[in-house]
Amino acid sequence: MKARAAACSLLLALAAAAQRDGAEAARQWRERNETGILAEFFEFLRLPNVLADRQDVRRNAEWLRAQLERREVRASLLEAGQAAPAVFGELASPGSTVTVVFYAHYDGQPAEAAQWTGQGPWEPTLRDRPPGQDARRLPFPAPDGRYDPEWRIWARSAADDKAPIMAMLAALDGLAARGLKPAVHLKFVFEGEEEAGSVHLGEILAAHREKLAGDFWVICDGPVHQSRVPQVVFGARGVVGFNITVYGPGRELHSGHYGNWSPNPALMLSHLIASMRDERGRVTIEGFYDAMEPLGQQERRALEALAAVETGLSRQLGIAAPYGNGASLSALVNEPVLNVRGLQSAAVGAESRNVVPAEATASFDIRMVRGDTPARMMGLVRQHLARLGYFVTSREPTPQERLAHARIARLWGGDAGYRAVRTPMDSRAARMVVQAVEAAAGAPVLRVPTSGGSVPLAIIEDALGAPTIGVPIVNHDNNQHAPDENLRLQNLWDGIEVMAALFRMREPETAAPPGARRR
Amino acid sequence: MKARAAACSLLLALAAAAQRDGAEAARQWRERNETGILAEFFEFLRLPNVLADRQDVRRNAEWLRAQLERREVRASLLEAGQAAPAVFGELASPGSTVTVVFYAHYDGQPAEAAQWTGQGPWEPTLRDRPPGQDARRLPFPAPDGRYDPEWRIWARSAADDKAPIMAMLAALDGLAARGLKPAVHLKFVFEGEEEAGSVHLGEILAAHREKLAGDFWVICDGPVHQSRVPQVVFGARGVVGFNITVYGPGRELHSGHYGNWSPNPALMLSHLIASMRDERGRVTIEGFYDAMEPLGQQERRALEALAAVETGLSRQLGIAAPYGNGASLSALVNEPVLNVRGLQSAAVGAESRNVVPAEATASFDIRMVRGDTPARMMGLVRQHLARLGYFVTSREPTPQERLAHARIARLWGGDAGYRAVRTPMDSRAARMVVQAVEAAAGAPVLRVPTSGGSVPLAIIEDALGAPTIGVPIVNHDNNQHAPDENLRLQNLWDGIEVMAALFRMREPETAAPPGARRR
Repeated sequence: MKARAAACSLLLALAAAAQRDGAEAARQWRERNETGILAEFFEFLRLPNVLADRQDVRRNAEWLRAQLERREVRASLLEAGQAAPAVFGELASPGSTVTVVFYAHYDGQPAEAAQWTGQGPWEPTLRDRPPGQDARRLPFPAPDGRYDPEWRIWARSAADDKAPIMAMLAALDGLAARGLKPAVHLKFVFEGEEEAGSVHLGEILAAHREKLAGDFWVICDGPVHQSRVPQVVFGARGVVGFNITVYGPGRELHSGHYGNWSPNPALMLSHLIASMRDERGRVTIEGFYDAMEPLGQQERRALEALAAVETGLSRQLGIAAPYGNGASLSALVNEPVLNVRGLQSAAVGAESRNVVPAEATASFDIRMVRGDTPARMMGLVRQHLARLGYFVTSREPTPQERLAHARIARLWGGDAGYRAVRTPMDSRAARMVVQAVEAAAGAPVLRVPTSGGSVPLAIIEDALGAPTIGVPIVNHDNNQHAPDENLRLQNLWDGIEVMAALFRMREPETAAPPGARRR
Repeated sequence: MKARAAACSLLLALAAAAQRDGAEAARQWRERNETGILAEFFEFLRLPNVLADRQDVRRNAEWLRAQLERREVRASLLEAGQAAPAVFGELASPGSTVTVVFYAHYDGQPAEAAQWTGQGPWEPTLRDRPPGQDARRLPFPAPDGRYDPEWRIWARSAADDKAPIMAMLAALDGLAARGLKPAVHLKFVFEGEEEAGSVHLGEILAAHREKLAGDFWVICDGPVHQSRVPQVVFGARGVVGFNITVYGPGRELHSGHYGNWSPNPALMLSHLIASMRDERGRVTIEGFYDAMEPLGQQERRALEALAAVETGLSRQLGIAAPYGNGASLSALVNEPVLNVRGLQSAAVGAESRNVVPAEATASFDIRMVRGDTPARMMGLVRQHLARLGYFVTSREPTPQERLAHARIARLWGGDAGYRAVRTPMDSRAARMVVQAVEAAAGAPVLRVPTSGGSVPLAIIEDALGAPTIGVPIVNHDNNQHAPDENLRLQNLWDGIEVMAALFRMREPETAAPPGARRR
């Protein structure tokens, strides 16, 4: 057994060396080509990518197909019904028996230009700092061709989620420049509807099942840990979003003449929201926490190994009293949550009018952990509304309905949502990915049982039966989903090396326990 | 005494006859000139009149001055500091010892064109119906020159408050066409900042005190009773408006990564609002109802004489369960109220993003009855916030303040506000006005102790010591302050007659009890 263990160690060391070679090749190539990489990235970021405009989204897909083909990746668009196309790419590694599918998404969250500092969301700029710190705009390309790795690229999707795609493209260039080939069969899937809840992803996967066959998926989305240590993520929360509109008078009324008498929907909505979650952030919808699966020992241990980041974050974000009774952020995301993501009724500030509003709307997202499903959670919301005496409808109430019910809630605009997924930390795929990322980082990585964010892992699991593992690369303070989204350059540089190492990933079959089944 | 009483009756009858002559002259003139009156009104309504654009407001003032001068009213603009000008007019009635000041305002509430049906707020149109009833747009001028009195003019300020101004202009034309003169000295004051809380009115009145001297003011603003019976209003509520912004993280955060941990300002605001007013509409701010002066017997009797309108209104507005425990609308407006007039945090619906919002704002107006003051009410709001543990500030919190306080409320954008006023129902001014309006209507009018709406009567009372009496003319279902504001033609026609009768108002001095002092 000793000889065997020694042989194992040698093989593992060789595998790690190959992956380090890949990362090293990518680094050297990047150091010589920073302006070129950024120029290509800026071109990508200049393409608006909100699903509401289908032509915009398709322009992104076509651009991506061209970039893949330029790198000798066989590329095509995966279409299905009304879906925005997913971009598919394939690069074989003759001799390998493993196929790894790399997932990222090229669509972005909506953005209001007026809320961005100094430039629109699709006008990428180079800045010397993150937002909120008097960042200066810098010329691009840099006159001396040198880029401080702390500089940031500000643009919608600079972080979420065009950065990993750019890192993959640059990693392919880096390997090619050194004459290195991928060590596994590579497939790429770049989705175009993630920010809208991936409503057609299942359909796309089902329609192209054979093309998409693979041993496991590497999911490249979301930020690295706040401590900036590289990490591998073994699961992601599920999500479902929806809006609730409640109704007052059939039309806005003068608040002087009618304010004492007419039901006020903004007041009604406030009471409704207050009934759903208490002032300490605990969700008070009956049954909300009842289905969550507890974490296993390995996962609890991994959580404990994560550095505490809460004090620094609180200071950075101006938060005096976080929710959660002192629990760590990483632990808290292993529970579900109901988040109020927006409020709207009539107008405030300079635009406010002295009216009883006709309606008031709140927008919510529910994050789920393993054990929960969108259907169960939406059922609990409906039950909660009904318990409060609300008549629940999916459309504008009719005049008859208004007269029949003192409280009407319209539940609408919900994306279909998906459940959470967690992949075992000791699986073969897990070991391959951890080894590659550690090779690129040159140090142990953090192992995160569940990301707080959501990626449609369940859809992949359901459609293809493939396990998924997350490898995020972007900075945590990226203003994801918000104005002034940004990417820290060092995160892009590191990401390129991580992708190159992953492309050179080796099967650790010899390290598997005797008798372990290959699958 | 009998002879004296008979003489009185004769004189009163003569006075009433003179007022009926005025109304009759106005009616006949109007019937021959409907297209012309409406054309002039449309010209007026086409002038945008939101205070935010000072040039717009001044164009309205200049237009009004020209219209008054065309009718031989000596007109000028009353300026004071930064105030939008008030338009002043004067028309002497040689031989009269009474001066009556007619007040209306020419500015309008802000309006969002996108929320209006089929046309912008400053593109007046003629429609066959009120909003919400599939109203058709009609050509103007009418091809046959005939106008159904149920038709409506849709435009911002068509009702609030350009209609009474138009009625006054047409009434002057009607009297002149018949060769009739006003029976009292007439003064006109058309304010330009009423919708912004009349913040400079006191300054304007003080700066032009002598010019504005008069026995009493007739306030032409607000709607007639829902039963459409003409009414005279002896008071108006006070009002004060303000915004409260509460704070979450220093920037919007991804709701997946931070939703369980970061304080959510939309949730915080909901709890705050819910703590201020209960689900039955009762305000729960401590001391809110403590200062209101009870109504007198005469006022309570006048209230009882008002027809019940609640059932019809409920049906029309789709309200299944009004606030107020079954009390009448007219009775309820004799109490103060806190109204939520708007909510805003991040975004809802198609624009919603999966974020923890950085802040959330609610806009409020408080309506006050006699006994309350804006300062007292705002003090109660501050106390309430402090009791809930809020740090109250008037500006954006600093990073240090954010870290020092778990709850921060910014109280801002408040208009100065003013208190309520009530004029005794048995005063000389009251009798003169009631007599004139009854002469125009040919029937008894409703006497309303207090309008639910607010007009800056306190400012007039404080600056000039003059009593005020309200004579509203517009339809109650006018969408005042809201999209699709509109005026019913018959209300404009009746209003012209009311104004003509008021211009021919006589002093009922002989009917005053012996020994009554004249003032």
